[in-house]
Amino acid sequence: MQRALSAHRMTGNRSNFPDWYQAVVREADMAEPSPVRGSMIIKPWGYGVWEQIQKDLDRRIKETGHDNCYFPLFIPLSFIAKEAQHVEGFAKEMAVVTHHRLKMIDGKLQPDPEARLEEPLVVRPTSETIIGDAFSRWIKSYRDLPLLINQWANVVRWEMRTRLFLRTAEFLWQEGHTAHADASDAMAETLRMLEVYRDFAETALAMPVIAGEKSENERFPGAVNTYSIEAMMQDGKALQAGPSHYLGTHFSQAQNIRFQNEAGELAFCHTTSWGVSTRLIGGVIMTHGDDDGLRLPPAVAPRQIVIVPMLRNKPEDADVLGYCAALAQALGQQSAFGERIRVLLDTKDIKSADKRWNWVRRGAPLIVEIGPRDVANAAVTYMRRDSLRDGDKVRSHGVSREQFVGEAAQLLTAIQTRLFGEAKTRLDSNIRTDITSFDEMAEYFGAAGDEDEAADFKGWVRASWARPSGAALDAVEQRLKQLKLSIRNAPLGLSEARGKCIFTGAPAVQDVLIARAY
Amino acid sequence: MQRALSAHRMTGNRSNFPDWYQAVVREADMAEPSPVRGSMIIKPWGYGVWEQIQKDLDRRIKETGHDNCYFPLFIPLSFIAKEAQHVEGFAKEMAVVTHHRLKMIDGKLQPDPEARLEEPLVVRPTSETIIGDAFSRWIKSYRDLPLLINQWANVVRWEMRTRLFLRTAEFLWQEGHTAHADASDAMAETLRMLEVYRDFAETALAMPVIAGEKSENERFPGAVNTYSIEAMMQDGKALQAGPSHYLGTHFSQAQNIRFQNEAGELAFCHTTSWGVSTRLIGGVIMTHGDDDGLRLPPAVAPRQIVIVPMLRNKPEDADVLGYCAALAQALGQQSAFGERIRVLLDTKDIKSADKRWNWVRRGAPLIVEIGPRDVANAAVTYMRRDSLRDGDKVRSHGVSREQFVGEAAQLLTAIQTRLFGEAKTRLDSNIRTDITSFDEMAEYFGAAGDEDEAADFKGWVRASWARPSGAALDAVEQRLKQLKLSIRNAPLGLSEARGKCIFTGAPAVQDVLIARAY
Repeated sequence: MQRALSAHRMTGNRSNFPDWYQAVVREADMAEPSPVRGSMIIKPWGYGVWEQIQKDLDRRIKETGHDNCYFPLFIPLSFIAKEAQHVEGFAKEMAVVTHHRLKMIDGKLQPDPEARLEEPLVVRPTSETIIGDAFSRWIKSYRDLPLLINQWANVVRWEMRTRLFLRTAEFLWQEGHTAHADASDAMAETLRMLEVYRDFAETALAMPVIAGEKSENERFPGAVNTYSIEAMMQDGKALQAGPSHYLGTHFSQAQNIRFQNEAGELAFCHTTSWGVSTRLIGGVIMTHGDDDGLRLPPAVAPRQIVIVPMLRNKPEDADVLGYCAALAQALGQQSAFGERIRVLLDTKDIKSADKRWNWVRRGAPLIVEIGPRDVANAAVTYMRRDSLRDGDKVRSHGVSREQFVGEAAQLLTAIQTRLFGEAKTRLDSNIRTDITSFDEMAEYFGAAGDEDEAADFKGWVRASWARPSGAALDAVEQRLKQLKLSIRNAPLGLSEARGKCIFTGAPAVQDVLIARAY
Repeated sequence: MQRALSAHRMTGNRSNFPDWYQAVVREADMAEPSPVRGSMIIKPWGYGVWEQIQKDLDRRIKETGHDNCYFPLFIPLSFIAKEAQHVEGFAKEMAVVTHHRLKMIDGKLQPDPEARLEEPLVVRPTSETIIGDAFSRWIKSYRDLPLLINQWANVVRWEMRTRLFLRTAEFLWQEGHTAHADASDAMAETLRMLEVYRDFAETALAMPVIAGEKSENERFPGAVNTYSIEAMMQDGKALQAGPSHYLGTHFSQAQNIRFQNEAGELAFCHTTSWGVSTRLIGGVIMTHGDDDGLRLPPAVAPRQIVIVPMLRNKPEDADVLGYCAALAQALGQQSAFGERIRVLLDTKDIKSADKRWNWVRRGAPLIVEIGPRDVANAAVTYMRRDSLRDGDKVRSHGVSREQFVGEAAQLLTAIQTRLFGEAKTRLDSNIRTDITSFDEMAEYFGAAGDEDEAADFKGWVRASWARPSGAALDAVEQRLKQLKLSIRNAPLGLSEARGKCIFTGAPAVQDVLIARAY
């Protein structure tokens, strides 16, 4: 994957993956660190990707019957205290509001001691408790079920080591919360939303994933079952996305979410929750980026086609601009992925060559360059960001204007398909299924230190296990941890496992994915 | 406006406007108070209206060249301290985060004393300072200008007396922040966005408004000019929406937002800001609601047509449901207001009559009821929510299915037009322009106490004034305050004022609107 950097290449390549990632986020103008420790500023191009993600996923969430609501940012401490009592492994790193006024004291602005809150408020790390409280009021009868609610919101979890998009103190997400009359309906919902996430990741983000069940130790605190989709990044590590939880009656018992069933008896609801966040954008970057920067799947690119006029401060500039404007308009009337094509005519007052490389780094799927010769020939010169180079040279294509407008939607679809295909090949060809003992696995992964780890692409291992529980599972996790490995999930839809457990030697019951992970 | 309440009418009418408002918010299922003092839970129907507002306004904001970003929820106290220094009248009621961890101490969960933040963080009351900080880094040259940024976010202002949608501690809004090379470009932006708000309010919300400039004392702290749109509620009070501020170089000097101009010199940017919030939903309710509940303008109704099948637990129910489903599909393929018509088939397991009144209270523009007779006759029976009653009776219309599907879009447009027309007539016919002295005005409004104030519809007064400044303006405001009045704005586009100032007797320079207000 290492190539000589051209003058226009980014200062970084994927052989040092963490540095490369940072460089792409910065040079693709996606986000930047903010003056508030652990928080980020999402810039227009990055936020544009989030808007596309929201639009597509929101449609899917509504099509599966969910309504959007908005719940308060602040949660009373008593709600959190209650949850802490009944949920083990509950995280306590959260932002706490203790005062409601500032005051100038001794020439310094500070929290006003007289405006101390009687009960501190917690900035939501998730809305589980406050939504559960609402459910306990909203649900009375079986007629109110299922109750299917979603929220798009910001949440805060105090993180010590942060990385833009992947782990920040504040992030944007959606959280689905649903209540059902029985376990089977709730479990169907849990798996339905997992499938929504899987299809969304693969279709919209062109990011192939494996859907499966998390191990007992990796469940959301309080969940009966937790499922996830796992994607393989270009350094071979797994990125977990889209967890979907079946919570049984655990939360409804703690929060008194009950309904009168058809027989007139009171029963506890079965609840679920599921969510995805701005972390997905990190996944898109690490799945599709290359040494020239970001490559965006057209389905979620804020602009799918960018037109760069080649201006020279000469009289013919006006013709070039007029031609570009007409081209932009014609393209904007075409549809791709069920919507009008998103086109930008870049008229910023900077050099054309700089514009080209700005859009290459940002990953615009099609970059069109129009000069006087194109105008004279009614032609279009364009680059495909998914296959930018031929060896070290940039590959550009010349076609008639008519052909380009007619085929633009197909080109975008082809780019989407190709990006997915590349990533799918990487995933499929980098899961070893031939490892049958722990020692063999340890040898394969090596006890890599932090430094060579990044350079050393290993992919994942799929191995059979006996699904140990309790202390036995803890022991397995400890052994994996020494290799910086973890169990990602037990993929759904596999035929029954055979052979012996890679950890215990006992008869295996299922296969699990083992990998390094974000 | 007082009418006898039918069995299905809400418990409240507009003669007691505050109670009526609360009843509509509750019975239209828009929002409810949350367990967190001053915060609300926005329920699906209320949030659905916000989603429509967002979609329409976001399009307008993008069409005028602005990009969306996302900035952090938390603002370092030092930023606020800096603003407090250079801005007079700066509000200090804000939520302050002082700790980043909870800890169980003596069996009680509380802020961990060891996790006290070195610098407290403020939950954004607005993002002015943190966006200004980013602008100071992003802007280098005149080529970077204008910089046009918008953000959709939640903000928090500690309010003591709250009312759902109208004034809550946390609310949702958009805030635009822009930087320009000179005053005229910044002023053009300020007025452009005011016009976007005016047109949006009148077109999408069917809420007629008067755009104008706020008085010197009512400016946003630090602004050179503040403009607003003012709408008349059904109790005659004014609701301010859509403030747009020209900030001069006041903020850019404090935050060092500079650019190199074409001559190579460093100059301060001229900045603007503007925003609307979930308060608009309160405006929609108070503009269009009637004694039967809410009436939603079709352009922002989450569902524009609701179909209620009249089921009787009989075999013909299946036919009715099939007919309704086909009707819903046919309607959903029609377009109104440039988008597919939003249709809901209400299959909830409750009585049809209850469903009808649920949708009446929620203000669905068209409510369709389908029984076996409609199926037999290929007919549709519907109610228009804008003109629900004939005297005390509900008015329903019977037409052929074919006609209804063909005319549905026109019906929705007609409802939108009629709601706007009603409100426009109310506004136009309730602004007195014949009052020429303060005493006359005092007599007209009376020194109403809190109780009779609500029942007493007075509308607004438009009067000429000499635009007093400083202490003279303070004195005017004091006199108005005793009558619970305030100056709303000086309407734009009026011909020059004649005669004398209603307050001082000096020669008048412009007209101002005077009203009670939210």
